[in-house]
Amino acid sequence: MDILVVGSVAFDTVETPFGHGHEVLGGSATYFSTSASFFTGVRLVAVVGEDFPDEHRSFLSSRNIDLTGLQVAPGRTFRWKGRYGYDLNEAQTLETHLNVFEGFQPKLPEDFRDAEVVFLANIDPELQMEVMRQVKRPRLIACDTMNFWIGGKRDALVRTLDQVDILIINEGETRQLANEPNLVKAAKAILALGPKTLVVKRGEYGVLVFGEHSVFSIPAYPLEEVFDPTGAGDTFAGGFVGYLAATGSFTDAAIRKATVFGSVMASFTVEDFSLNRLRSVSWQEIEDRFRRFQALTAFEGLD
Amino acid sequence: MDILVVGSVAFDTVETPFGHGHEVLGGSATYFSTSASFFTGVRLVAVVGEDFPDEHRSFLSSRNIDLTGLQVAPGRTFRWKGRYGYDLNEAQTLETHLNVFEGFQPKLPEDFRDAEVVFLANIDPELQMEVMRQVKRPRLIACDTMNFWIGGKRDALVRTLDQVDILIINEGETRQLANEPNLVKAAKAILALGPKTLVVKRGEYGVLVFGEHSVFSIPAYPLEEVFDPTGAGDTFAGGFVGYLAATGSFTDAAIRKATVFGSVMASFTVEDFSLNRLRSVSWQEIEDRFRRFQALTAFEGLD
Repeated sequence: MDILVVGSVAFDTVETPFGHGHEVLGGSATYFSTSASFFTGVRLVAVVGEDFPDEHRSFLSSRNIDLTGLQVAPGRTFRWKGRYGYDLNEAQTLETHLNVFEGFQPKLPEDFRDAEVVFLANIDPELQMEVMRQVKRPRLIACDTMNFWIGGKRDALVRTLDQVDILIINEGETRQLANEPNLVKAAKAILALGPKTLVVKRGEYGVLVFGEHSVFSIPAYPLEEVFDPTGAGDTFAGGFVGYLAATGSFTDAAIRKATVFGSVMASFTVEDFSLNRLRSVSWQEIEDRFRRFQALTAFEGLD
Repeated sequence: MDILVVGSVAFDTVETPFGHGHEVLGGSATYFSTSASFFTGVRLVAVVGEDFPDEHRSFLSSRNIDLTGLQVAPGRTFRWKGRYGYDLNEAQTLETHLNVFEGFQPKLPEDFRDAEVVFLANIDPELQMEVMRQVKRPRLIACDTMNFWIGGKRDALVRTLDQVDILIINEGETRQLANEPNLVKAAKAILALGPKTLVVKRGEYGVLVFGEHSVFSIPAYPLEEVFDPTGAGDTFAGGFVGYLAATGSFTDAAIRKATVFGSVMASFTVEDFSLNRLRSVSWQEIEDRFRRFQALTAFEGLD
């Protein structure tokens, strides 16, 4: 199954203790699509400005990403500027210029409306709802959100979550959304809002997945060189949803394996700036790292 | 094999958002011994004051813990007072009264000197070295330390580490000891100091184990009720070293399984104040939770 993704395409300017990237290709939908494209076809709905170069468009097209839904609006593309310290878990945002993204109204091309798998990246929950209205009969809807919407548009977000199968957010957002410091209790409260699965991203500490009858946890891959964590969460989501869409199976076993593939993809993204590592990584390397995750986490059972 | 442990026995006064404990039984050697005693016999070397009640002595003796090496010195037992906020990962120390622990000189009873497995809990590295001098031919030495010694007695600590097989410390201490923010690089630097295995405790995020040719990682058991994290690290070490001593095997496979048992034991300790949960937990519950760790972390491989 192909995936429909709606989110942002942006230029990022990023400083980390190990270097910096100036106006490099970024955005939630970009990372998600590129990561998911290793598993299945992707249909992208987003908006860019007139300054968006053909070079980036060609790259995305070359990756089995359908750009029919990529609107071009008068003005400049979304720009984000951020900095990371040695604690690479949290970015400090220095500048956000929404530009054309501010007036973004997702409009699905007619033949995108039969999408079976949908990923709603981190955008206004009212727009997420609007996308769900335009899709005919999706089999799986996953979504992301952030502290800004949890605090500022809680009602709309709660209505969105009621229609979503899988919510993929970070640890702080989990606690904030449930207003509960204990993660297990917070997860229960969030599952009661609608999602059947809650995926909690914990940065360098890995991922916790809460289902109705199951909890799964996997550490992050321990890396000696982490250059830039930007896009790690969306890359994770791309591998996660990508694997599920490719197999068409949404069982607990599939979700566990999808979590590992998501973690594998994210572990590559952080090894370089922007999408650089996703541009170079091979399927062989992805499978190798999947096997390293097995070696990392395996232990013998009781006799 | 029995284990020789040298460390502190203390009274803890602890406040958490969920309640408080006043002058309850605590101390690194106490948590370690009680946890390890589920796996093998323990010989305890520590000091208490004249105020240490028979009740605690009886409890420890009842757990296959040999108290021949428990000195009684004139004065009061070590007292610690601390507080935890909703972020239960780090204690805020309010008061430390070393009392009789200040003049502690570990003196091994003659028949403790043939110990095959030794755990040096978090004490002055010069005392750790003194203990190693008194032990004849140990097969395995594991030790703990803390920021205070890393900062204040680095030379002595480095000399200790040169003789130690397994170092068990937390994440911040790992970075501090290696003076390196990246955990993988920090681990390599520490292994170069002597230990063949470095166990990095990450609180609610689990444990990372670095060996010469292997890395193992396991998440913490997700708990709905965490009452008091005091003693979790020493309880982990007790289960970890306890399992290794009980089997007499120190292979990579044994170390992985020991890490799971350590995590299982720690997950019980934090469910109640002081040693309360370790007093009530059964072997059946320990095995059940080991199996839950398997369910928590299992995923299917590539075809």
